Amino acid sequence: TFTHGIQTVTLIPGDGIGPEISTAVMKIFEVAEAPIQWEERNVTAIQGPGGKWMIPADAKESMDRNKIGLKGPLKTPIAAGHPSMNLLLRKTFDLYANVRPCVSIEGYKTPYTDVNLVTIRENTEGEYSGIEHVIVDGVVQSIKLITEQASQRIAEYAFEYAKNNQRASVTAVHKANIMRMSDGLFLRKCREAAEKHKDVKFHEMYLDTVCLNMVQNPTEFDVLVMPNLYGDILSDLCAGLIGGLGVTPSGNIGANGVAIFESVHGTAPDIAGKDMANPTALLLSAVMMLRHMGLHGHAKKIETACFDVIRDKKVLTKDLGGNSKCSEFTEAICQRVRDLV
Amino acid sequence: TFTHGIQTVTLIPGDGIGPEISTAVMKIFEVAEAPIQWEERNVTAIQGPGGKWMIPADAKESMDRNKIGLKGPLKTPIAAGHPSMNLLLRKTFDLYANVRPCVSIEGYKTPYTDVNLVTIRENTEGEYSGIEHVIVDGVVQSIKLITEQASQRIAEYAFEYAKNNQRASVTAVHKANIMRMSDGLFLRKCREAAEKHKDVKFHEMYLDTVCLNMVQNPTEFDVLVMPNLYGDILSDLCAGLIGGLGVTPSGNIGANGVAIFESVHGTAPDIAGKDMANPTALLLSAVMMLRHMGLHGHAKKIETACFDVIRDKKVLTKDLGGNSKCSEFTEAICQRVRDLV
Ligand SMILES: CC(C)[C@H](C(=O)O)[C@@H](O)C(=O)O
Ligand SMILES: CC(C)[C@H](C(=O)O)[C@@H](O)C(=O)O
Repeated sequence: TFTHGIQTVTLIPGDGIGPEISTAVMKIFEVAEAPIQWEERNVTAIQGPGGKWMIPADAKESMDRNKIGLKGPLKTPIAAGHPSMNLLLRKTFDLYANVRPCVSIEGYKTPYTDVNLVTIRENTEGEYSGIEHVIVDGVVQSIKLITEQASQRIAEYAFEYAKNNQRASVTAVHKANIMRMSDGLFLRKCREAAEKHKDVKFHEMYLDTVCLNMVQNPTEFDVLVMPNLYGDILSDLCAGLIGGLGVTPSGNIGANGVAIFESVHGTAPDIAGKDMANPTALLLSAVMMLRHMGLHGHAKKIETACFDVIRDKKVLTKDLGGNSKCSEFTEAICQRVRDLV
Repeated sequence: TFTHGIQTVTLIPGDGIGPEISTAVMKIFEVAEAPIQWEERNVTAIQGPGGKWMIPADAKESMDRNKIGLKGPLKTPIAAGHPSMNLLLRKTFDLYANVRPCVSIEGYKTPYTDVNLVTIRENTEGEYSGIEHVIVDGVVQSIKLITEQASQRIAEYAFEYAKNNQRASVTAVHKANIMRMSDGLFLRKCREAAEKHKDVKFHEMYLDTVCLNMVQNPTEFDVLVMPNLYGDILSDLCAGLIGGLGVTPSGNIGANGVAIFESVHGTAPDIAGKDMANPTALLLSAVMMLRHMGLHGHAKKIETACFDVIRDKKVLTKDLGGNSKCSEFTEAICQRVRDLV
């Protein structure tokens, strides 16, 4: 064994159930002796000079310094022109890759078993460019922007990810039969990356075909890489296969190690503060974070404890089919962590 | 009972397995005494003056006269600039609504039971506008075009469809949180149609959420209406839930009764001519056609016969899990039709 120094991570607890599930994660990390120190920051969008929406300076400064963040759900206030906080964070830190491993959880029954895939979504452009126009009255266009640079970056990331995570294949998901130039460019960059990484198998597949095959036989998929909107869709679809957003981790990765890991479920205001929330998605996102930081031992221990408790079916939150409180579920995982030592 | 006159329908047998499954449908229609006369036409894209791709004049003329077509799978030749035949047909006859009922088939096992929904896809614009540009080297844009007119037309169609088919609700599927202007316009038109049709319930839902909920609980959905690309994706996803494109019917509907019904699976060149193909998707599309023509009795009889044979599990084609030939499966359905009289 070797010792890591303690690293500081920016923690954005978020809204609604965010604080409760963040507390749960911190407890489990403490028991597991993960060498992490949390720096809590609030994130609500503020308007800077000229009306530009931005995240508060102290949160930005913390992330800039720590490079790594863990984030609970954030509510997006309904105000004209108010951007989604998720989008604002991706943009602020140029988090160009959204990574979502979808792995079947033993003991948590869904119509599928043995799902084990990862969606990698281009997170900065495409259909999310935000460029739209009224051409004439009643005629509107939205612009899907695909660049060589962003396509190359995400394609390269997908192959690197496959290699670093012992995965056999990368599938590029596209509609280049329809969007010949934009998806065509994206696909070309994937093909070029495939040429460079011949040790990883490469497939290309239409988005509609992927959706069809995904619900029929998800086990045929491994790593999938795709433009922004297709990733939005497919990552949610795949989350559905393994039990939903309550159990699905997510990471947003930027350059030079910068990354924010987050649960992608909502703030669940109806159960907030009632000790009923399920911290699994945030916990598994925190496990992804540990792996990103090279803390594989701690990651494995916490992940194992979490999956063991779910498999045991004795202490589960309501959404997982049990009737335990968030704090009880958390304590069960802590106990399991202690037993694993 | 009352007598219909015999109506003529344009039959486009298509490529690969197209002719075999067309023969199967014609046999079953004959035994069921469906008052249909077929006018066979070949459709391969030809280049008109100025290099414009079009469908052959005699096929166009036949469709213009008969208004109603049934079509097997068409291969799209790989030639520079060659359009998809499916897209060319939709465009030529302004078939603005793609309608796909997805209903679980008793006896054909998938992870889902009791799926009973219909996807209605805007078929003429959106991401399929075909407008793309290179802005500067390495920067490409594709234009998603949404018009008030097309959005209103499809929204109106969805509510009319719900009423005419005793369906309780319409869900508009969108990403108006991201594409505020284009999907926003689409959504607004759906809301306006909902105002006009208060007897049908109306919901609106993000595309990603629909995908997630769809794989978790498809029974919560009824009629879904959406822009072009979302329909491409969701219709395939939903087909997957009930057993794939081999059992899913499809109709492309235009104004003034014009419509083409088609199986949306491929040409399956590997088994073409071997009497192994499954005619179910084309047969069920032909059943949709009969309903479109008001021939509900014949539609019901043929549909029942088809589902009975599948439920019996005695005579099934290979893809359905059996080892019978296409002709044997067809004869089993014919026999069932005779028994039903
Ligand atoms: C909240 C929303 C803007 C976001 C998106 O559409 O990307 C969400 O669905 C996601 O997947 O993170
Ligand atoms: C063949 C292809 C152009 C077509 C589409 O993308 O619309 C197909 O997937 C469909 O759904 O009819």
